[in-house]
Order: sequence, then C-alpha cells, then structure tokens
Amino acid sequence: MGKVQLEDNDIKEKKTEFSLVQVKGTWKRKLGKVNKDTVDCVSAAKIYESITEKGATWTVVSPIVFTYKVTETQDLLDPINDTLLLGHLSDPQQVDDFKKSNNSIKRFVVIDQEVYKIYGPRLTHYLEANNVLYKIMALPTTEENKSMEMALKILEEVNSFSLDRRTEPIIAIGGGVCLDIVGLAASLYRRRTPYIRVPTTLLSYIDASVGAKTGVNFANCKNKLGAYIPPTAVFLDLSFIQTIPRRHIANGLAEMLKMALMKHRGLFELLEKHGRMLLDTKFQADNSVYGLSCLQAASQSTRIAITTMLEELAPNLWEDNLNRLVDFGHLISPALEMKVLPSLLHGEAVNIDMSYMVYVSKESGLLTEEEKQRIISCMVGLELPVWHEACTKELIQRSLQDRLKHSGGLVRMPLPVGLGKA
Amino acid sequence: MGKVQLEDNDIKEKKTEFSLVQVKGTWKRKLGKVNKDTVDCVSAAKIYESITEKGATWTVVSPIVFTYKVTETQDLLDPINDTLLLGHLSDPQQVDDFKKSNNSIKRFVVIDQEVYKIYGPRLTHYLEANNVLYKIMALPTTEENKSMEMALKILEEVNSFSLDRRTEPIIAIGGGVCLDIVGLAASLYRRRTPYIRVPTTLLSYIDASVGAKTGVNFANCKNKLGAYIPPTAVFLDLSFIQTIPRRHIANGLAEMLKMALMKHRGLFELLEKHGRMLLDTKFQADNSVYGLSCLQAASQSTRIAITTMLEELAPNLWEDNLNRLVDFGHLISPALEMKVLPSLLHGEAVNIDMSYMVYVSKESGLLTEEEKQRIISCMVGLELPVWHEACTKELIQRSLQDRLKHSGGLVRMPLPVGLGKA
Repeated sequence: MGKVQLEDNDIKEKKTEFSLVQVKGTWKRKLGKVNKDTVDCVSAAKIYESITEKGATWTVVSPIVFTYKVTETQDLLDPINDTLLLGHLSDPQQVDDFKKSNNSIKRFVVIDQEVYKIYGPRLTHYLEANNVLYKIMALPTTEENKSMEMALKILEEVNSFSLDRRTEPIIAIGGGVCLDIVGLAASLYRRRTPYIRVPTTLLSYIDASVGAKTGVNFANCKNKLGAYIPPTAVFLDLSFIQTIPRRHIANGLAEMLKMALMKHRGLFELLEKHGRMLLDTKFQADNSVYGLSCLQAASQSTRIAITTMLEELAPNLWEDNLNRLVDFGHLISPALEMKVLPSLLHGEAVNIDMSYMVYVSKESGLLTEEEKQRIISCMVGLELPVWHEACTKELIQRSLQDRLKHSGGLVRMPLPVGLGKA
Repeated sequence: MGKVQLEDNDIKEKKTEFSLVQVKGTWKRKLGKVNKDTVDCVSAAKIYESITEKGATWTVVSPIVFTYKVTETQDLLDPINDTLLLGHLSDPQQVDDFKKSNNSIKRFVVIDQEVYKIYGPRLTHYLEANNVLYKIMALPTTEENKSMEMALKILEEVNSFSLDRRTEPIIAIGGGVCLDIVGLAASLYRRRTPYIRVPTTLLSYIDASVGAKTGVNFANCKNKLGAYIPPTAVFLDLSFIQTIPRRHIANGLAEMLKMALMKHRGLFELLEKHGRMLLDTKFQADNSVYGLSCLQAASQSTRIAITTMLEELAPNLWEDNLNRLVDFGHLISPALEMKVLPSLLHGEAVNIDMSYMVYVSKESGLLTEEEKQRIISCMVGLELPVWHEACTKELIQRSLQDRLKHSGGLVRMPLPVGLGKA
C-alpha cells in the first residue's frame, strides 16, 4: 500500500494508491493501511493518483457486484404460489415483513400478446387474488418489432404507472424477444430498475432468461443496441412449454444441443436418446407411452442446459472475454436469420450454423466421421434443419469477415472436437 | 467452502457454493477448495445452488470491475499532444505498439455545435495532422434536445461509420448534456462501446465528466432514461473554459460550492476568497492584476472539487447507497429547472436549492447565523441566484414527496452542519 510503483515503464511515473473509507457518512481517500476499527466502512473501490508537471491523473477502479436468482417453480400462476411476487427477495425477513404488512403490492407486467391470449385470464386472476395493484401490457413481441420504439412505448407506460424503482420490479412474461426488450427498457428506466424474467418458450427458458444480455434490433442488425444488466430473478416454469408449437420446441432444443456439443457429452446422449420423446411430450408429464421417464428427461436436460450455461455466463457476464463457447452456432446465424426473416427461427438458424461447423470440424480432422454422423442424426431427430438455401458462400464469408472485424483481428470460432468438447 | 449454510432461516435450506474455474478454455463449476495449480483461471464469480422438492434455485454472484482514467492535460488540440487519441490506454506497451504501427487511427467525434463553432477548425486540423480517419458530428446539445431521439441519431451515424467497438472509443466534446447523451449512445451500442469525455464547460469539468452517469430526458423528466457506464477516459483541459460566458462559469462554481459545503472547508475558503478572481480570469493565466495566483487558485480549486467528487463516486458508482452527499442541492432543483427551462441554468437551480437548505439548516440549529451569512455572501460573490419566484411552496413540497417516494419511504436530505461538513 501507500506509494507503490504499479508499472515498470520508462516514465517511472509514481502512482499513489488510495483506499476509500467512510467516516460519519462521508467518504475519504485514505493513504496506506486502513485500520478497520476507526472507520464505518471500507470500499472495494480504489483511486490511484499520479501528479506530474503535465497535470494530475486519477484512475478509478470500482467493482459492481451483480446478484441474481434463477428459480425453478411449478404452477407459477396458481394464486397460492407467491414466487412471481416475492420470489426475487433473497432475505427471508423481507418476505416475512411483506406478508405481515397490509400494503398491497404494485406490479407492472409486460406479456407477449400470444402468451396473453392463452394465459391472460389466469394471470389476471392471479394478480386479483393476491390483491396486486397492476398494469398488464400485452405486446406483439416478434423479432420484426424488436425495436427501440417498442422499448420506448413500454417506458411511457411504466412512467405513467409510477412504480417504486427500488422495490417494484417490472415483470416480463414471454419468449426471448419479450424478455430482451423489457430487460432493456427496465435497464434504462431511471438508469436501472429491477426486472423479472418469466420465459414461456423452451428457447428462452434455457437461453435468454439466464444471462445478463438485453437488447433490440437496430439498423437491420440483430441486438445492435442493448445493455448487460441481469434480471433480479428468473422464474422457470416448464408448464408454459405445453402450449408451444412443436417447431418452436425443436427451436429451443437447438440451443440445448449447442451446450451439449460444446460442454456436456451426457446432455448430448440424453438428446440423442430422448429428443423425440421431449418433442412429443413437450417437456410435460405424460400418462401414456412414455410414463415417468419423460418428466425425468425434461427436468434433467433443462437443468444441465441451465447449469452449463450459467457456468459460462457467470465468469464472463459482460463478455469481456471474447472466447465464448456459447457463441458456437452464432457466427453465420445472425446474418442468416436477419436475411430470411421470419422464415427461420433463431434456433433453426443456429442449428444450420452448427451443422456447417460440424462439417468444418470433420474436414479439419477434429471430429471423426462417426461423430459427425451421430451429431447430424441427432439434429435430424430433433427435427432441425441442417441447411438453408440462403446460407450461401457469400453470406458465410461476409459473416466471417464481420466477426474478424469485431473481434480485434482474431477469428474466434468454437468448434466441436468430439462429443461434448470444444 | 463446500456445503455451507448461508442463512439461518426457518427453512434451513441448504445452499451449495460453487467456484468457477477455467480448464482448457471451458468454465466448470467446482465444489470445495480450488487448487490453483490445476486450473487456468479462477473467477471471482460464484454460483450457489439449492435443490428442494419444489425445484432448483441458482444464485449467481458476479462482480464487474469498472476502470477509468481522469487526466488533466494542456493544449488538448495541439497536434503534438496525443492525449485525445491515446490517453485512454493504460498499458504503455499498447501506446508504443500503436505509435510503431502505421495503421491510421479511426475516431468518431460528437461535439456540441457551439463548441464546434469555436474549436471546429482546430479539431479538424488536429485530426488531419495525426492522420486520423474521422467523422465529426456537431449537434445542438441543449437541455431541450437531450432526448433518446438525439441519441438514436448519433447511433445511426456511429453504425454507418463502422468502428471497432473494442479499440475505437467514441469521443464526446462539450458540456454536460453532450457528454450525457453520447455516453448513453455509446453504452447502448453493441451493449457497450468505450467512450471518452472532454468537458468544455466548468460545470461538466468538475461534475458530469468524472462519474458513471449517462442519460437523456424523457416524459418531461430530467435524465429519466440512462445508464451507469463510466467513460474509458476523461480529458480535462482548463483552456476550454476561457470561451465560456461569465454566467456559465458561475453555474459551474455552484457545483464546486456544493462539494465545498458538504466536504471541504478549504475549498469553501478558496471560493470565498478567490471566487471573484476565478470569474474574472475564467480559470486562465492572467498577466495583469491577479498574476500567478489566479492559475494556482484555478488549479487548486478544480483539483479539490474533482478529488472530493471522486471520493464520493468511486465507492458508490451505481448509486446503490442512497445517502449521497453529492445530492445536496438536487432535491428541489430538478423540478425547478424543468419548470422554468431554459431560464435557469443547472448550477443556478442547484444554488437556489442549496440556499434554501442553508436556511433550513440555520432554522434547525445546524448552522450558526454567522455561518449562514458567510455561505450566502459567498454565493452572491459567485454571482449565483439565491432565490427564484418559481420556487414556490408547492414545488418544494412536491419535490419532497417525490423524493420520499423514490427513496423507499425515508427522506434523505444532506444538510450542511458548519462549513465543509454535512
């Protein structure tokens, strides 16, 4: 501590390190060792000062800790389940205080229009039964509408609803597009308002819901504008998947397959073996042919997908490290998806990208012919497209160049090397 | 480590703590003690897992470290000064590499229109002389134009300029409004693009430039939308102040006085003694009556203002703690400022707020009559208004209620208790 030389550069510039301590409500810079008994609080932040004849330079180093919960729940919209209203609170005392107080809860809910058609009455009943002061905004949250315009429309309503931005999180219920737009709107409102994600599609259940990314499309580019602000909580209820069309379930299975190929051989084998069953039963309990095993496969596969995803996201929440395994399948797919919109779903475009990369891996000797065959068969079993006519050589080359430009001159391209390894 | 009980609550829920370690490019959850020799990297992030019959819950705790530089410089637009182009780099090796390579530098610059009228030719000359590929966007960055619309206008140009969002920071040159809008636009672009702040007014020099806040007005509310993303660097050149009208210098002195009253008696005495001189000389060297002492006062007062500001900002970059001394003068002033726009400048509104609070402090016995008199005299000496007819009882009450609502039921109101203490 104290006067330390941080870098052995030519200038031999002396930097002074200051800790920050709070005494009687005021923060002070403190040189040297801090005696914790004499101060109210020591910050993790530091200030470095160097003064030369050219002037002073201060370097501020300030850590911000993000904490968020990802919680599985059943029957989220059953009025006796208080997860949606209180599940984001981490302190049991807060929950108790809330239950004891007679204050009614206030919530702003943004829900996808199609989801609202199915679950609107149950949602309204849930909120009424729990005596919530609420406003529900049902919006057509499609990829084509994923714009700053829609985020601003939400913000106008949020502003006139006048919620307490510390204690009344905005709730988003829908697929990835809905969760992304609402996440961005909440992140912008008063520079950060907590929000809750309730994914209703398989894709968003295992992908968009668990990370920190929010965003909207801009200038015909996917997610060009956005923020890295995680939700305060994510509530996962598999029962929403039962009303999702089969093709959209396959769409989610593509992202699951991505994590399987990159990181988890067990998950790959699960999808290889039970993919068809998961498509047939839509991740629900089934009393006919499949019996209990389908519930087990549904629970196992989603948990593995989420934990492997969290493993990659938590250490790299703001994507400072560009070597991201979760980017597998996302090299060609963004351009492909935007080009043929709305004919390919996100997971379908990702799968086409992955199948191309599997061939590249095979050609480069990273995968055996048999491994390649197993992967492609698994994709076909999951009813996913492995090719699209719009995926031309030009598109692939343009995507590679674009990635090259945005990744500082190095092509970072995760490739599978065997099953469940990259 | 390992299985630990985090909270002694009634549920006696067991949480398992996982560290995150990187092995061969892949992140893995790791239970128990980590042997650092066997892994490539250990993350500061953690994942806590608890599994009950209701389902699993994961809690992600992920720290993000913000680092930024605040650098005083002279003659920023002198072509031999490379601060504007390379001053944000912290690694001397990077600077060397840059100088040795023959690649030309690419920069997108947003500058306030009025500032451009004065400094446009010098800026252009600077960029040309340094062989920079540039685009300059001169905009009327007034409080009335501080909107998402203007941020989007900037983003469209940024997008077509096609910069490398890792290595080519966006440069903002202007007053607080310009720095705030550009900061927000950069924070949104590709979820975070580095940006540089060059304040050209005294107010932004000591206030907007050094923190993490960005923002635009929305729904007739000041800074309702924004983000907490600090710039990668701030370059401070006092010579810009020489072209600022006298009233706007007084405007900046109000924010300086705020820090003096809250935290620094020495700064108060400096302003009391040299306020008039600082207004007369506009923080520049002067060869007539004042001599060298004016440069000393300019340098001393701005440095104290910035270090006291950084002391409060660094430990609370995202304003998680609501007890902020820097909020002094910002209780009534936002509503007042928006009400009479554009007749009061920000610092003037802040000063009216502060003078009201000084009277409150005196009435509450926190300040002596003599201290109150000294503060009010100092304000008058700095040519700042201490009252405005639009500052009615209703406006004050409404502001108090609004603050009450947004601060979780507790009025947090910093008040001076003597000179330089709160």
